[in-house]
Amino acid sequence: MAYTLFYFPGNANLAPHMALEEIGVPYELALLDRANAEHKSAPYLARNPTGRIPTLLAQQPDGNEETVFETAAILLHLADNHPDSKLAPAPGTPGRGRFLTWLFHLTNTIQPEYRVFYYPEQHVTDPAHVADAKATAERRLCEMFALVDRELATRPYIAADHLTVADFLLLMLVRWGRNFTHPPRDLPHLGRLCAELLARPSVQRAFEQEGLAAPFV
Amino acid sequence: MAYTLFYFPGNANLAPHMALEEIGVPYELALLDRANAEHKSAPYLARNPTGRIPTLLAQQPDGNEETVFETAAILLHLADNHPDSKLAPAPGTPGRGRFLTWLFHLTNTIQPEYRVFYYPEQHVTDPAHVADAKATAERRLCEMFALVDRELATRPYIAADHLTVADFLLLMLVRWGRNFTHPPRDLPHLGRLCAELLARPSVQRAFEQEGLAAPFV
Repeated sequence: MAYTLFYFPGNANLAPHMALEEIGVPYELALLDRANAEHKSAPYLARNPTGRIPTLLAQQPDGNEETVFETAAILLHLADNHPDSKLAPAPGTPGRGRFLTWLFHLTNTIQPEYRVFYYPEQHVTDPAHVADAKATAERRLCEMFALVDRELATRPYIAADHLTVADFLLLMLVRWGRNFTHPPRDLPHLGRLCAELLARPSVQRAFEQEGLAAPFV
Repeated sequence: MAYTLFYFPGNANLAPHMALEEIGVPYELALLDRANAEHKSAPYLARNPTGRIPTLLAQQPDGNEETVFETAAILLHLADNHPDSKLAPAPGTPGRGRFLTWLFHLTNTIQPEYRVFYYPEQHVTDPAHVADAKATAERRLCEMFALVDRELATRPYIAADHLTVADFLLLMLVRWGRNFTHPPRDLPHLGRLCAELLARPSVQRAFEQEGLAAPFV
């Protein structure tokens, strides 16, 4: 199976990018021209009508090409397509429910809150309210990461007793908060996990290929 | 496999409730005492530290009990645990990527926007900004449902050419907007799908068991 990942450095593609490197499967990166809003262009919207980054093209077992978007959907699809990588408990095995719980939690709670933090002007109509929306999102994100940190006090990885694709999603989300007043990397258990992940060759290759400079989280 | 679903009428449990009825597997409903904030109590938080509704307890194949939360995680877990119900393309089969794409899209885009719509006071700090946050969320939700409606112009169900658990999630999300100025049920393709789903005995049983009255969406 071969893949193409449409990306822009540091965008939500970073988590699937790390997963592709960890799996070690052949893939290509396709850089989107964000300066010219290529992710809002007709050819891209035909593949991904949300106009968001990333999108994955996957050769299916039947030879057809499948388009997958939504970061966490891509992560789950990659993990399940490559069970030998053990990046997710297999369907029907113990721990699958807990894995899905935390993968979905990260993507439907922390990830959308970042949309408010980074694009607050889209979430209120009066420009005078923008700073409030952004500051409230940062406070909420800190509370969300504190909950994740409490979970990480009970097990080594967020969604299982071993590394899963949810950890790549979490590392990306921690990175996005690196300029907070209280950055999530400073939480003890989260900081421990991030340090371990950043030491992995797969993670280092993804950061390097996207040209991301320190501080990484 | 037997299940227990912790619920409160009309809350996010409605989608998994419909799925359990459609699958036809034995399950019990456990009503949460929301008036006394049972979902924020220590026993519930020990199972689900987010304090959100619903939570599913599932007997695993090995005899142990597994706790699953996040609505879409529960839906996916149920669909994959009961492949005969055909409520999701199986992992590794054509269409799995598209199914995951739309299941994740609904839960990480539309569902969190409803948190702002229903609890706007948690998303800004100044009470004078609350009405703006709520109205902006309603406008954004209408745009999100318009995108879903355009997808439904191209196929009968949101995530596949057949019914999947993502349709139950979508029906629940449409229901939550039933008092909008422009309710999503009025969109042509979405309205067609909702009418079809509401005619299913499984859906009718779930609505009846939760005591939900018309208008259903």
